[in-house]
Parts: sequence; structure tokens; C-alpha cells
Amino acid sequence: MSNHVYKQIELTGSSTTGIEDAIENAVSRAAQTVRNMRWFEVVDTRGHIEDGRVAHWQVTIKVGFTLE
Amino acid sequence: MSNHVYKQIELTGSSTTGIEDAIENAVSRAAQTVRNMRWFEVVDTRGHIEDGRVAHWQVTIKVGFTLE
Amino acid sequence: MSNHVYKQIELTGSSTTGIEDAIENAVSRAAQTVRNMRWFEVVDTRGHIEDGRVAHWQVTIKVGFTLE
Amino acid sequence: MSNHVYKQIELTGSSTTGIEDAIENAVSRAAQTVRNMRWFEVVDTRGHIEDGRVAHWQVTIKVGFTLE
Amino acid sequence: MSNHVYKQIELTGSSTTGIEDAIENAVSRAAQTVRNMRWFEVVDTRGHIEDGRVAHWQVTIKVGFTLE
Amino acid sequence: MSNHVYKQIELTGSSTTGIEDAIENAVSRAAQTVRNMRWFEVVDTRGHIEDGRVAHWQVTIKVGFTLE
Amino acid sequence: MSNHVYKQIELTGSSTTGIEDAIENAVSRAAQTVRNMRWFEVVDTRGHIEDGRVAHWQVTIKVGFTLE
Amino acid sequence: MSNHVYKQIELTGSSTTGIEDAIENAVSRAAQTVRNMRWFEVVDTRGHIEDGRVAHWQVTIKVGFTLE
Amino acid sequence: MSNHVYKQIELTGSSTTGIEDAIENAVSRAAQTVRNMRWFEVVDTRGHIEDGRVAHWQVTIKVGFTLE
Amino acid sequence: MSNHVYKQIELTGSSTTGIEDAIENAVSRAAQTVRNMRWFEVVDTRGHIEDGRVAHWQVTIKVGFTLE
Amino acid sequence: MSNHVYKQIELTGSSTTGIEDAIENAVSRAAQTVRNMRWFEVVDTRGHIEDGRVAHWQVTIKVGFTLE
Amino acid sequence: MSNHVYKQIELTGSSTTGIEDAIENAVSRAAQTVRNMRWFEVVDTRGHIEDGRVAHWQVTIKVGFTLE
Repeated sequence: MSNHVYKQIELTGSSTTGIEDAIENAVSRAAQTVRNMRWFEVVDTRGHIEDGRVAHWQVTIKVGFTLE
Repeated sequence: MSNHVYKQIELTGSSTTGIEDAIENAVSRAAQTVRNMRWFEVVDTRGHIEDGRVAHWQVTIKVGFTLE
Repeated sequence: MSNHVYKQIELTGSSTTGIEDAIENAVSRAAQTVRNMRWFEVVDTRGHIEDGRVAHWQVTIKVGFTLE
Repeated sequence: MSNHVYKQIELTGSSTTGIEDAIENAVSRAAQTVRNMRWFEVVDTRGHIEDGRVAHWQVTIKVGFTLE
Repeated sequence: MSNHVYKQIELTGSSTTGIEDAIENAVSRAAQTVRNMRWFEVVDTRGHIEDGRVAHWQVTIKVGFTLE
Repeated sequence: MSNHVYKQIELTGSSTTGIEDAIENAVSRAAQTVRNMRWFEVVDTRGHIEDGRVAHWQVTIKVGFTLE
Repeated sequence: MSNHVYKQIELTGSSTTGIEDAIENAVSRAAQTVRNMRWFEVVDTRGHIEDGRVAHWQVTIKVGFTLE
Repeated sequence: MSNHVYKQIELTGSSTTGIEDAIENAVSRAAQTVRNMRWFEVVDTRGHIEDGRVAHWQVTIKVGFTLE
Repeated sequence: MSNHVYKQIELTGSSTTGIEDAIENAVSRAAQTVRNMRWFEVVDTRGHIEDGRVAHWQVTIKVGFTLE
Repeated sequence: MSNHVYKQIELTGSSTTGIEDAIENAVSRAAQTVRNMRWFEVVDTRGHIEDGRVAHWQVTIKVGFTLE
Repeated sequence: MSNHVYKQIELTGSSTTGIEDAIENAVSRAAQTVRNMRWFEVVDTRGHIEDGRVAHWQVTIKVGFTLE
Repeated sequence: MSNHVYKQIELTGSSTTGIEDAIENAVSRAAQTVRNMRWFEVVDTRGHIEDGRVAHWQVTIKVGFTLE
């Protein structure tokens, strides 16, 4: 593992359900074009409010993947 | 949208269920007196422990709303 | 309460389910050897990705307990 | 001056023109309801992009005023 | 306690005597209009210098109180 | 809006004129290859000094855009 | 001194009197079980409010000690 | 360039006009006594408010210069 | 006041008595060579421990003064 | 130089040798696909431990390059 | 790996040679009493100066290990 | 030691060799004009890249020295 080089990208996923689902949405969207994703880290957690309720959750993550 | 002025307030919501529910509790309590809330941002996530288990969750958020 | 001294330790819990469960796992493991835990604070939230999905969640918390 | 107590509030002003104008807009809107404002501090500077150009600027400030 | 919602406000108190007194001044001034204050947290500690001596201390705190 | 995934990139724009112009330069250069840019956030503001004057301004921003 | 290894622990001391006394209480309690403490650093300063007055001060410190 | 040693100093410039002008004022004042200034970085942006308007802008910068 | 340029320097004062006294010691020592000091801001608060007690307090401050 | 726009990317390099070598590995790997790299900045330094020794070093850097 | 709980401790290692050696010294000293150490993260890098030269390097790290 | 007042200055040293050498260069240059330097702390670590390799390292440090 010690010779790998990783790249990190920053993504924001959204969900009407909750925090974990917003993260899963960002990861699965990125998986369409990025291979070898290894880990993520939450950068911040936000959301939009409509009619006095949380309408959707927005979570920004850094995702690291191996450069082959 | 470019002429609006927003104000942010900081709230802490609690829940025995989890993080999203603590945020929803803060937002719905604020909705009793604050109109036009637009978004929130999580500031920190804490909780109280009783008998070796999480007894309740406490999430502090900033909430932004339009000044009319 | 004003004469107590507290100590904080930093733990990372894991879960295949979600963020709250990772925190509960860290707290319940610590409860085997630490008494009088009072509160926790989330330090960061990460996770591992396998096959384009979140394989497990890792949440680092500070846990405070009373020194008797 | 040494006996005063100040309160800070957090506001976000917008402008199609620039950063200073967004701050001025937040301050002048607040002046309609808050007296004795003394200083501000920029918290963050953001903006919206439309058609590859900055459509409007959004600057968040803390404003301090004297409690009489 | 788990169903409470708290609000935080930011205040700056001054004193010619010292840091604790500046905090007490901010808290007691706020107590004239805010009920159910529960805790504070120091945000920053500053002061003014006149003639090569500290003329007064200025301490900014966040104060949390229960929304009833 | 709740199903979108956004990506953020970090850019530094320069200008001999001022801060807003440096940001506009970064945004318009990015618009040549990135579609659907939605917002930016200032990360830091620097500049070069020549002959005791600001020779050019350099502003680093995060730019967010929708992944289609 | 250059061959020593130090360990840091995080403690919170309380006092009804003030900030320095809360720190002294944390240090003297730790001295019952930790030898060779060398220095501390204040991490944050908080307190509880009762009846519109500071009821007790809570100061969190990192304490460093030599591993023999 | 690789053998140079630089020193940074922190300055606050003021202006009734705007942010860039406050920075230029700090740089040109420093140029009276400091040679070989190379770059600056904005540390924070504040201002004073009088009669509900920004009366002057205060920008704190770090300035780096070559030690000859 | 809007045309002044200020310079900030960073000092650490010590005291066997407490935090305020350590700050006063730094300010009064600086007053021997620096004129026109206007304000200070606490950067961090530390101390040395001997025999399980705080032996002396060390407070680092930024001090701002007018460049004439 | 004042008309350039730069982009920053975040990379993590590994090495069994040390910190500088981990950075060199990240830079030389990136050089295979990125032209006109100009500078880097260390974001964090980590490593893996095996059998009570550092098995490899992992350094995360931001790398800036000119957009042509 | 998803069911493990990790604990982090904070250590400072010293060396007259350099940064990597100071980290190795902290890790190897900790290995005398802590099993299953997995990773470290640099918290800060300092040193002592004697006669205008770096006399020894001091690096503070967080070390994570598996709770069995 | 408890009556000393220290001043900190911020320097950036460069080296084609590595991080420790860049720090040593900054310290030895400062020693030409500053007496009684006691410690340093790394503020950030950067470098310039030429032809896909690190051309030189730049490390910014705070240096503390006793005011006599």
C-alpha cells in the first residue's frame, strides 16, 4: 500500500431522507466515473428548510481514490 | 434573490432518537416564531451518556432566514 | 457539580449501518472499562468505500467522564 | 466605554455589484431595527454564478451593537 | 432534558477589573431581558491599552438559554 | 433540487484591478470547460507587491457545479 | 531534555471562584495519579449560569507529562 | 529564489472607500520603512459603523518581505 | 481614526499569579519600547506545572499599535 | 503573471522513507498527467504503524498548476 | 474491520536529528506499553533553539490503536 | 523563568534539500540580528515545483525569543 498515490475530490450529495443517504448519493454518483474510491470524510452538513421543516439534506464530503 | 438580507441564529435541538431528529426538533421549534427560514448548517454534534448508552443527541445548527 | 474534574478520551467507532450506530458502538465498548461517562462530542465522520458504496462508517468522538 | 455590553448578530447581505455593496446592504437593512451598531467583521464571502459569470455576491458579517 | 431546544446569543462584556468580571457583566446585563440562561462559552478575550496598561478587558461569550 | 450531486473545484484568479475582478477572471476561465457552475466561496485573498504597491490581486475560490 | 517522550491528556476542572482556580483544581486532581506533569494549555473556557449569575466555571486543559 | 529568508509582519490598514484601498494604505505606509516587500495575505476584514452606514473599512494583512 | 495604519506584534507574558497579571506583564514590558499601543487579543493561555501545582502562567497576546 | 488562473488539486503520496519522499512521490505521479505544476502546500502528515514502527508515511498536499 | 473500536492518544517525541526521528521515538516509546497501534497523525511540529541553531525537534502526534 | 517576556516573529526559510534544512536556514539567518531565540513552531510547509519535481522547500515558522 505504501507506493500508492491518492487523489481527493470534494462532492456534495443531497437527500430528502437524511445524512447517510445524502453521502451514499454522492458516492454512488461519483462511482459512475471514478474508479478505486477508498474512503470519504464529511466536510460539512447543511440543508434546506421549507415550510418550517427540513426539505432536503446536503452533505459535502472529500472522497479519496487511488491513482492507478 | 440578490437583494435579500438574511439573518442567522444558532439553535441546539435534542432528541432521544438521532441526529436528524434533533435537527428537525430545533427547526420546528424555531418555526413557531421565525418565518422564512431557508437553510441550516450543522455547527457541532454532541450527546449525553447515561448507563453506558447515548441517552440523547444534541445538535447545534445555524439557521438562516430572510429579513422581509 | 462544581467540584468535579472530568477527563476526555478520544475514540473511533465503526458501523456498517450509520453514524449513530458507530457512535453507540464506541460508547458501549468504552463502557466496559470506563465508568461515569457523561457526554460525547463528534470530532469527525469518515468511512470506507468498497465497490462504489459506503462499506462502513467511522466516527471519532471525544468522551468525557467524571474522575471520582 | 468600559462598562458597555455589546451583542453580535450574524447577517448576510447580497449585491449584484460587489463585496462592499453587499456589506452595506446588510448594514443598512439592519439599521431599520437595530440601533447603536458599532462595527462589523466579515465571516465569509460567497456568490452565485449564472451563465459563467458572478450573478450576485453574498457576504456574511457579524455586526456588534451596544445594549443600552 | 432531551426535549429542550436552546438558543445561543453572542455578547461582549467589559470590565476594568479582569476577565471573570467582564463575563459576569455580560451575563448580568443579558439577565435583564433573557430568561433561562444555562451556560456560556468564551469566544475570545481582548482588551484596550491606555498609557502602557490594560485599561479594560473585553470578553466575548456565547450564552445558551432554553426556549420555553 | 434535492437529487443533485455537486462537485467543488478550487481555483485562483488574478487581477491588477481588485478582488472582485480576480474572482470574475477565475470564474470566466473555468466556464470555458466547466458547465453548470452554481456558486463560489472565497478561500483566501492574497497579492503580490512591487515597488511598494499592490501589483496584482490573487483570490482563491471554491466553485461548485452540478454533475449532470 | 531532547530524548523525552511526553503524553498529553485532556481534563476539565470546575470552580465557583474563577478560571485560574478551575485550572488548579484539574491539575491537583490529576496529580493524585499522574507524575511528572510539566505544562498545560487551555482548550476552552465555559461555565454554568444559574439565576442570571455564573454559578461555576469550567476550564478544559491539555496537560503534558513525561513518560519515564 | 531558494536561498532567501522572508519575514512576515501583520498590519491593519483603514479606508473610507473600500477593502482594496485599506490594503493599499497599509502597504504604502509600510513601504516607508520596509524594503523588498513581496506579497500579502488578508487575515481579516472588519469595519466601523456610524449612523447605520460603514464609516471606514479595516483590513488586517500579513506582509512578507525578503531579509537581505 | 480612518486613516491610521496599525501594526500587530505577538508577545508572551508570564506570571506566578494568574492570567491577567501575565498579560499586564507583557504589555508593560512592551511599553518600554513601543508607543501608541491600542489593544490586545489573547492568542493562547498556557502554564508550567511543578510539584502538581501551576508554577507560572504564560499568556500569548497580539498587541496592536498605531504607526505614526 | 497577473492574468493566470490556477487550479489546485489535493493528492496524498506515500513513502517508506520519510515526509519529503512521500511528497516527491505525489508530485512525480501527478506530473504524468498534469502540466505546469507550480507549487504545493502540505495539508496533513500521517502514517501507518506496524509492529511498533512507522511502516510508511502519508502526506496530503494541495498542488497548484496554471490553466493554459 | 468495521466492528473495531479505536482509541487515540496524543504524544510528543523529541530528536536532535529531525522530524521523522522525533515521530519514530514517540511511536517506539509508546510501543512498550500500547499494543495494536495502527496509525498516527502529526498535530504540530516545534523545536528548541540554542546558540542560533535547532537543538532538538519536538513533534506532537495522535496515535490510534485498536481496543481488543 | 516566570518573569520573562517573549516576542514571536514569523519567518519563512527555503532549501533545495528538505524541510529541516529550510527551518535551519530561517533560524540561522535570524540569528544574525536576533539574540536569545528559544523555540520555533512550524506554521506551514510549502514548496515550488519545476519540471515535475520539488525545486525548493519553503517552511514558515514562528520563532520566540526572550526580551531582555
